[in-house]
Amino acid sequence: MTLFEPEPAAAGSVRVRMLVAYDGTGFSGFAANPGVTTVAGTLAAALERILRQPVRLTGAGRTDAGVHAWGQVVSFELPAGADPEGLDLEGLRRSLNAMAAPGIVVRSVAWADPGFDARFSALTRRYRYTVLNRAVPDPFLAATAWHVATPLDLADMRLACDPLHGEHDFSSFCRRPRVAARAEPVSLVRRIQRAHWEDLGEGVLHFEIEANAFCQQMVRSIVGLLVDIGVGKRRAGEVAGVIRDRDRRRAGPVAPPQGLCLWEVTYPGGLTWPD
Amino acid sequence: MTLFEPEPAAAGSVRVRMLVAYDGTGFSGFAANPGVTTVAGTLAAALERILRQPVRLTGAGRTDAGVHAWGQVVSFELPAGADPEGLDLEGLRRSLNAMAAPGIVVRSVAWADPGFDARFSALTRRYRYTVLNRAVPDPFLAATAWHVATPLDLADMRLACDPLHGEHDFSSFCRRPRVAARAEPVSLVRRIQRAHWEDLGEGVLHFEIEANAFCQQMVRSIVGLLVDIGVGKRRAGEVAGVIRDRDRRRAGPVAPPQGLCLWEVTYPGGLTWPD
Repeated sequence: MTLFEPEPAAAGSVRVRMLVAYDGTGFSGFAANPGVTTVAGTLAAALERILRQPVRLTGAGRTDAGVHAWGQVVSFELPAGADPEGLDLEGLRRSLNAMAAPGIVVRSVAWADPGFDARFSALTRRYRYTVLNRAVPDPFLAATAWHVATPLDLADMRLACDPLHGEHDFSSFCRRPRVAARAEPVSLVRRIQRAHWEDLGEGVLHFEIEANAFCQQMVRSIVGLLVDIGVGKRRAGEVAGVIRDRDRRRAGPVAPPQGLCLWEVTYPGGLTWPD
Repeated sequence: MTLFEPEPAAAGSVRVRMLVAYDGTGFSGFAANPGVTTVAGTLAAALERILRQPVRLTGAGRTDAGVHAWGQVVSFELPAGADPEGLDLEGLRRSLNAMAAPGIVVRSVAWADPGFDARFSALTRRYRYTVLNRAVPDPFLAATAWHVATPLDLADMRLACDPLHGEHDFSSFCRRPRVAARAEPVSLVRRIQRAHWEDLGEGVLHFEIEANAFCQQMVRSIVGLLVDIGVGKRRAGEVAGVIRDRDRRRAGPVAPPQGLCLWEVTYPGGLTWPD
């Protein structure tokens, strides 16, 4: 299943890949968007100051406004005039971090194989959604968790994960992409390898979900439905039907963005990152 | 050693104590201060809206701007006209949290013994200072840790904690309090029960320090000196002399506020807090 079209590699082009973490609180999402502060826009502006030429960034996941990342992967092609021999990647990392701090941290930078594309080459994406399930909130988790005061039935929420596994059309959980009038319809078929809840104690719950790819709002829509099941508003047995109906109105509320974090992206053969 | 003077209890007065956590990032410290946003000012304004009369709050620790708390203890006297019978403490907690969210969270509220004063009655205060010691920072720890990129010698920093223990005049580590011209000099003698470093792995270090009380900037000055020792700028053997000299210029830089958190306050007999 080919979901994304790669940017064709120019002859002799040199590509760089970066492992990036960010606190999404202050950003209008990952993707560059004129007039608002985004993660890609901030990184591209910093890179342009360093390389003295504009670059176009590709990210493995287009996280929404307020969503975080620990293991976002970003790639770009060096501008035609730039000399790769003269570029010190560790120096580049330090300069980027000095300019993008404290919200964005470039964890590692490496040369990429020719043709590598952070988005197109990715095999799977893993997201983590954090719920704080206790009566009293925690000011230190306010920016990274969804506080749910009603006690959740974790056994029901785990049961409800079963029908999510495998390849399905996730139209019920996806914001319909805007497409040009006569364009081909966009497929919302995705393959979920893993979806489960971990209980860390003290009311901290992690929902871990891994798939070949996700459509917009998919993780947060799934979490919204699972929490509705956890508080007893819906039943675990309804999930299979919600998927089958391919109807956005059948799912549940969209969980708030601050609980979501793009945790890890995998690539064929695995990527190694210098410390 | 009597450090603080309590507020005398009015006859028949009823006192309330609260366990309070806050992210100090957006606040100009704990203590109420006209014209700036403080933790006590925010809580007092919320209490005044609920009780329809002004109250005066006392906190166990007067944390500086940007310093956090997990276990701050706050007490106040009910206004003379207020009827304790008609006051539902759990409802009070919920209302306060709705008004002070997300930066301040009242974890628990209880009736206090007559004469209880969060500051005067306290036996010990325990602070935690978090250092992130690795080359690459972490955007999710930017608001709660001091990022030190140079590798620290933890063995030296642990050795340097030894001479801090016991009762000393900590003038070298304290911002001199402003006092009226002919007032009695303020004692900066404090008794440290425990000062040690914990290594949590992945570069996360916790400095835990417990004393009967602390003077202003004392923990951050101690951490500044210990980190200077950890990077090799100073030697562990210098600490005893720095204390003995009672000279502010002999200590080190003051560590930044965001790493510091008032963790716990103890009282005679211990306090129990409803869930």
